[in-house]
Amino acid sequence: MKLWGGRFSGKSASGAEAFGAAIGFDHRLWPYDVMGSAAHTRMLARCGIVPIADARAILAGLSEVASELATNQLDFAPHWEDIHTRIEARLTELVGAPAGRLHTARSRNDQIALDVRLLCREAILDQLDGLIHLMRALLELGARGGDALIPGYTHLQRAQPVLFSHHVHAYVEMLERDAGRLLDCYRRTDVMPLGSGALAGVPYPIDRDLTARLLGFSSITRNSIDAVSDRDFVVELVSALALIATHLSRLAEELVLWSTAEFGFITLDEAYTTGSSMMPQKRNPDLAELVRGKTGRVMGHLVALLALLKALPLAYDKDLQEDKEALFDAVDTVAACVGITTEMIRSLRINRERASQAAAGEFSLATDYADYLTRKGIPFRDAHQIVGQLVQLCERSGRELHELTLDELTMASPLFERDAVGITAEGAIAARDVPGGTAPSRVQAASRAAEARLGDLDGAVQRLREAFPSLDRLLSEPL
Amino acid sequence: MKLWGGRFSGKSASGAEAFGAAIGFDHRLWPYDVMGSAAHTRMLARCGIVPIADARAILAGLSEVASELATNQLDFAPHWEDIHTRIEARLTELVGAPAGRLHTARSRNDQIALDVRLLCREAILDQLDGLIHLMRALLELGARGGDALIPGYTHLQRAQPVLFSHHVHAYVEMLERDAGRLLDCYRRTDVMPLGSGALAGVPYPIDRDLTARLLGFSSITRNSIDAVSDRDFVVELVSALALIATHLSRLAEELVLWSTAEFGFITLDEAYTTGSSMMPQKRNPDLAELVRGKTGRVMGHLVALLALLKALPLAYDKDLQEDKEALFDAVDTVAACVGITTEMIRSLRINRERASQAAAGEFSLATDYADYLTRKGIPFRDAHQIVGQLVQLCERSGRELHELTLDELTMASPLFERDAVGITAEGAIAARDVPGGTAPSRVQAASRAAEARLGDLDGAVQRLREAFPSLDRLLSEPL
Amino acid sequence: MKLWGGRFSGKSASGAEAFGAAIGFDHRLWPYDVMGSAAHTRMLARCGIVPIADARAILAGLSEVASELATNQLDFAPHWEDIHTRIEARLTELVGAPAGRLHTARSRNDQIALDVRLLCREAILDQLDGLIHLMRALLELGARGGDALIPGYTHLQRAQPVLFSHHVHAYVEMLERDAGRLLDCYRRTDVMPLGSGALAGVPYPIDRDLTARLLGFSSITRNSIDAVSDRDFVVELVSALALIATHLSRLAEELVLWSTAEFGFITLDEAYTTGSSMMPQKRNPDLAELVRGKTGRVMGHLVALLALLKALPLAYDKDLQEDKEALFDAVDTVAACVGITTEMIRSLRINRERASQAAAGEFSLATDYADYLTRKGIPFRDAHQIVGQLVQLCERSGRELHELTLDELTMASPLFERDAVGITAEGAIAARDVPGGTAPSRVQAASRAAEARLGDLDGAVQRLREAFPSLDRLLSEPL
Amino acid sequence: MKLWGGRFSGKSASGAEAFGAAIGFDHRLWPYDVMGSAAHTRMLARCGIVPIADARAILAGLSEVASELATNQLDFAPHWEDIHTRIEARLTELVGAPAGRLHTARSRNDQIALDVRLLCREAILDQLDGLIHLMRALLELGARGGDALIPGYTHLQRAQPVLFSHHVHAYVEMLERDAGRLLDCYRRTDVMPLGSGALAGVPYPIDRDLTARLLGFSSITRNSIDAVSDRDFVVELVSALALIATHLSRLAEELVLWSTAEFGFITLDEAYTTGSSMMPQKRNPDLAELVRGKTGRVMGHLVALLALLKALPLAYDKDLQEDKEALFDAVDTVAACVGITTEMIRSLRINRERASQAAAGEFSLATDYADYLTRKGIPFRDAHQIVGQLVQLCERSGRELHELTLDELTMASPLFERDAVGITAEGAIAARDVPGGTAPSRVQAASRAAEARLGDLDGAVQRLREAFPSLDRLLSEPL
Repeated sequence: MKLWGGRFSGKSASGAEAFGAAIGFDHRLWPYDVMGSAAHTRMLARCGIVPIADARAILAGLSEVASELATNQLDFAPHWEDIHTRIEARLTELVGAPAGRLHTARSRNDQIALDVRLLCREAILDQLDGLIHLMRALLELGARGGDALIPGYTHLQRAQPVLFSHHVHAYVEMLERDAGRLLDCYRRTDVMPLGSGALAGVPYPIDRDLTARLLGFSSITRNSIDAVSDRDFVVELVSALALIATHLSRLAEELVLWSTAEFGFITLDEAYTTGSSMMPQKRNPDLAELVRGKTGRVMGHLVALLALLKALPLAYDKDLQEDKEALFDAVDTVAACVGITTEMIRSLRINRERASQAAAGEFSLATDYADYLTRKGIPFRDAHQIVGQLVQLCERSGRELHELTLDELTMASPLFERDAVGITAEGAIAARDVPGGTAPSRVQAASRAAEARLGDLDGAVQRLREAFPSLDRLLSEPL
Repeated sequence: MKLWGGRFSGKSASGAEAFGAAIGFDHRLWPYDVMGSAAHTRMLARCGIVPIADARAILAGLSEVASELATNQLDFAPHWEDIHTRIEARLTELVGAPAGRLHTARSRNDQIALDVRLLCREAILDQLDGLIHLMRALLELGARGGDALIPGYTHLQRAQPVLFSHHVHAYVEMLERDAGRLLDCYRRTDVMPLGSGALAGVPYPIDRDLTARLLGFSSITRNSIDAVSDRDFVVELVSALALIATHLSRLAEELVLWSTAEFGFITLDEAYTTGSSMMPQKRNPDLAELVRGKTGRVMGHLVALLALLKALPLAYDKDLQEDKEALFDAVDTVAACVGITTEMIRSLRINRERASQAAAGEFSLATDYADYLTRKGIPFRDAHQIVGQLVQLCERSGRELHELTLDELTMASPLFERDAVGITAEGAIAARDVPGGTAPSRVQAASRAAEARLGDLDGAVQRLREAFPSLDRLLSEPL
Repeated sequence: MKLWGGRFSGKSASGAEAFGAAIGFDHRLWPYDVMGSAAHTRMLARCGIVPIADARAILAGLSEVASELATNQLDFAPHWEDIHTRIEARLTELVGAPAGRLHTARSRNDQIALDVRLLCREAILDQLDGLIHLMRALLELGARGGDALIPGYTHLQRAQPVLFSHHVHAYVEMLERDAGRLLDCYRRTDVMPLGSGALAGVPYPIDRDLTARLLGFSSITRNSIDAVSDRDFVVELVSALALIATHLSRLAEELVLWSTAEFGFITLDEAYTTGSSMMPQKRNPDLAELVRGKTGRVMGHLVALLALLKALPLAYDKDLQEDKEALFDAVDTVAACVGITTEMIRSLRINRERASQAAAGEFSLATDYADYLTRKGIPFRDAHQIVGQLVQLCERSGRELHELTLDELTMASPLFERDAVGITAEGAIAARDVPGGTAPSRVQAASRAAEARLGDLDGAVQRLREAFPSLDRLLSEPL
Repeated sequence: MKLWGGRFSGKSASGAEAFGAAIGFDHRLWPYDVMGSAAHTRMLARCGIVPIADARAILAGLSEVASELATNQLDFAPHWEDIHTRIEARLTELVGAPAGRLHTARSRNDQIALDVRLLCREAILDQLDGLIHLMRALLELGARGGDALIPGYTHLQRAQPVLFSHHVHAYVEMLERDAGRLLDCYRRTDVMPLGSGALAGVPYPIDRDLTARLLGFSSITRNSIDAVSDRDFVVELVSALALIATHLSRLAEELVLWSTAEFGFITLDEAYTTGSSMMPQKRNPDLAELVRGKTGRVMGHLVALLALLKALPLAYDKDLQEDKEALFDAVDTVAACVGITTEMIRSLRINRERASQAAAGEFSLATDYADYLTRKGIPFRDAHQIVGQLVQLCERSGRELHELTLDELTMASPLFERDAVGITAEGAIAARDVPGGTAPSRVQAASRAAEARLGDLDGAVQRLREAFPSLDRLLSEPL
């Protein structure tokens, strides 16, 4: 069955059929397609465009098709072309003539736009749930860290000591921004395109707002040509996912680094490492590496989508069929990466002693010596210069700054007094007592505030989800 | 002068200096850098961290530096490393010792984060202004089109006639979504990072909220490590720009197509075309082609930025210096493309007759024949089949559907009556009388609604711009 | 079964197993993996590292595993991790202890490098076969065009008439370069990595050259660390594929344009078009559009691979597992696009009259008028200027250049004589009688030369293919 | 001056001029443009198409223009449009009427194709020179390493000890493949397009082979339409550069890692590090980080170029003007990265002791214990299992494998004998005595072989360079 055979005399070439078929991947859209058809049918019936009896037959038939699909009873051979055709064909087998009325005032162009929006709407909320779990796991990891220190790095050189929890919270900030982007994208996705027809609107007295309400959309598209050619919401979603993947890759890189013999700040749970087929001693952070590696994949999908849309004339072009595999894989990849990262974060062990020791070494308190002098009144630039020379002195004699004598300090600057000898990593951390700083009280407050914001976010996501219609009710409620 | 020479015994290799220097491109940040330094100085003075007299000297000096920069009196040789160093060096020459206090409680890591945020904040509003102009030009073009028709295309095959204005409005929809994304990005950009120090916060009793107020920011960053390693706002902005560029490429493609000998729906103003060095007759849509071509460039910058950030450990890494050229060029490219597109839209001529004629040809009313039958009671699927065969009949006899006789029509379906012979493009358009459809009244209403929304958007942009501080006042107001 | 369980006390988390497993996609490598194991076993036996009897048992077992795999009798559940593990596990079930000797002097790191190289080697030759078919189809299409003209375009504005066949030959040139790149990539792929071990080489007296000969490789890798971390050949192959996809997208764009109502130069065979679910008259060039759209997908895979490798420390990292899906899909996508394009080219109909008519219109002979004057002695720049004004004159009076009278011509330049009135598209084409030009004799010669080169290329590809070992013989030949 | 004003009545809009102008960046092509014009003039004269006297005047004029350009005496304001126009305009000022004959039988379409090919030809050889220097620096670094060991890593976990030089040689392999790709690209770039005209060839009896000889090209393009629309050689070059950048990013990543406090295997020369404006102790590997970061930039240019060409109809479209900035920046970026990396490699210090110590730790000899048992006759799989359990035993008791007693070893397997206690890193390395392995003799041989190949490569590059014409002679030799 083709939905468009009337004017054609011949048959599709079989290679052509296989090349052009979307059903190999778009069958994933079936719940959304059935949902859309059910809502469309109800609207057509209420507007008197399709007789009530036919509408009931269609809904009953769709209900049967849905249960067959849910139990994998329908094949998806290439000659079915796409999931829309497959469903309509099966419906026709089941209910006969009334099935022919389902496509009244509808084209596959607005139908597929609807299906993809429905999928994205749900995918966005699922991603938000995943991010919330990961952010909570990170906050818990910070809490487990307690007063553990690690070196704060710039240029991967030890810079200044920070609380382990403060470092971990940096990732919570990134992911919260990601969540914000997903919510913004949700608003632009939550718009109902049905009624746009092939591109020009439809010549029937339909009620688009009713369809939107039945499907739980907040609004309807405003221009029929745009509605069928727009995939901005897909690009925006995949852009947001690419940035999430990038954030995960930074965290994964740190998990890999921190679990090396050289850094040794954490130990990944054995269940999240693997061994080597050749080297009996290996315990490899495979999963973190894969999370890191999958970033490129999501970036690649973003490039594919932008290249796809470049210079495409309006309205619908078949090229748009290529949006789906990139979208699906980006969604699945990021969901899996967020999930596995959450598990790794929950199960890793912090090697507190080693991390704290490293935090104090390698002149990482040098800035505090300069700040000491600055607080005594000399310009920071001069203080920076003096301490730079003290570091040289230490290097020549193989010592750390706290191993310098008071004499040596006062030789460099007479402003140094006895208390300068006692500068510690803990003191340095406590001194950074500004909003956003690493002082323990600030970090604890930051953690509590983040938890509160996460609670709000969780609530917002759940409220959005409640607006989703139930497929069962759309199919079975009396008309 | 280096800001960091203290511990170094030797000199930078000169090749190294040239390779590492940012000043060749980051000098563009100077107004933002001076602005940030002025606000930081005022805050340090008010918090008692820098003596008032020194702060006054710094502000006076910065004022002088700013006027030298505004009049191109300072060189940007590579040994200056970056704009921060250049400005501090000149300040030191001008005011001596007090200059050494400017960098108290500040690192170049939070300083550059501030500068880039200030630039992006302004760039976003500038882009919004550009988009508003373009959208208004498109609405005006639609209005100029009046009741002109063009073929609506799918697959670049004529599908159904639409109003020229309806087609043009599709681009307004795209650009409005772009504007929405820019505003969302603005919120995440409008956050003040100063006070994060190198990565851990600073050990001085600073008032970050005061600095934010002085610079017109809505809020401050919440985690010092994140604050210096975050370039999400750059990626988000360039993502939004990439999608704008993609939309412009679709419009440019249509301008190119429509001004071919074959389509001929518009004539670009001569001032926006060029000739050939060899072929005397040519009038080429060069500018539209360039707009189309520049899409790849913006996509490329997005890829560069995502690849840059991939797997980068916290906190600041020098790699981040590479964010600037991609950002600057993406901002400039899209601004230029939006500007030139606006001019082309304003000056092009619609070839009404040719467009309207094309709109009615090539069986583009076939769907209306099917809808005719559907309204008479037969399922749409059957109607589609019947009309498909009528099209075949026409093709064999070299006619259009409206050239079929009533006999021929009733032979295909007895439901056809006299009024079926009179189906016209105008009638087909009028019939698509649904929200978002191409019926004239709908299109006019859409245009008025879009104008109203543009007014709101314009107002919102201007309100945001009013929050920006004046550089002059930051430098010269009494302390 | 894990190949690395010895030092592990616990079990993998099941989510971890699913996330990390490659077997869901790398099972495609099974013929190469079995082939590599067979050659490795033969080499180990010949070098006396594994007893002959054990080697025979292994080969017999591998033979059984291969036939099970060929008939889909083995499951690929995630707990099998990868195809290497799956095969070794099944081998162990079948032959017991000797199976444990197969992995002597081998790591999965050099094993997977081998498998991917074997796959690429074959994929490259398959792509070359596909390109050869497409180039031949294009040459045939050119021949079918005979003396048909079409407008040559620059900036999509008609520029100068050309032979239809000359235009089509441009694509043969592009594809020949593609073939050259594939052959170059073949040389760098055809290098045998086994014997590199995990990264350092192996402590057994193996004969790497023997393994290479058994597998039909031209040479062996020269550095063990590079051998296991190198995926350059994958990037190079996918780069070449991205450029092929780009070429196909240019051709597809032209097929779409040429089959519009507006251009109308060709008619695609009905079997390679599809209809609309809503609009009964539509005949859409879906397949050409899909070919065009899939370009982005291949570009995306290239980006994914480059991003994957960026900043990856040596030697093997798990990230590299991500190379496979991108590679496989790029190979499959381009192969399918080449195939379907070949079929479309073979079956399309040229609308000679319409194309030839268009070729002569819109002042497309203006350059020939300028060249006429130049040959009479005036500088080309002046001639260009004069003809430009003639074009203006024609435009004002709604005529073509050949409709100007001799008087009008001589008024513009006294050098015009009677023969200037007779300039025709055919004459213009015949005059471009330079190597690479569109004169009929040149185009025919170009076609013959291309056919000869294709014959050579075909021979070269077949010779390379003959070097491939037979899996059957590797498994069953006496040891 | 416009080269195409004849048919135009009005003027370009000034914004349009600025937007469309290429001269802001394409002036870099001037030596190639002058060279091409000189060769074209000589050919036209020899073929009798331009009078000898006029040709002499043109050559003299071009000579003057070239010396003005070389000394920056010509402005490049946007109204000049592009470098071709600028040069022809200046030539006209200098020599008058004969200048009008220069563009006979030439279009800017084939002219720009020539210029870009000439630039690429030279850029490729320059890149090859750069790579040769870097490879030599790497071989020297290996030699400086002598018998120093470092841990070989997989998954950034210590795997097996290797010679430092063996590790370094892996990069030589990568870069040699890069050189191979550049040479292959050279062949496809070294093709002369002039004579293709705007797209159709030219109606003059020109001698394209003569032009090619004068410009030192190996061959001429075979199809005029392809010749003006082809930018494959640009894409291929930038693809090769993207892979070079990727290789440099891997090396840069290791330089960053190795110079951390945690790894400490090398010390970068102070001249190639920088300090911090805030932290007096810092010594940051900025340049290595920048090399790593610039990878994304080159990838971005590749994406820009592929996106540019996607779906572009033949022949020349203005979009192609966008090829230049991406190309130029990719060429410059990679050249700079190769140069700075060479300097860093030459000046870094190996911390032999620390590296060698690390090489022996963390059970990195475990595979050798397994191989020991395998050589005694048990299957490798069983040996792997036994040693895995020994590693667990060591971990529980905080020991390394070589600290186990013979009793403990024989308890695990009776095959262990006294010599098993003495397994050392040096022994392990010596045992990997296979081609490509890390045994000292193999590594030394590899180094010598690489040097020899580099000599050959160097010679080949210099021979190609000798084919380049001298601009001076092209301008001044008697006609």
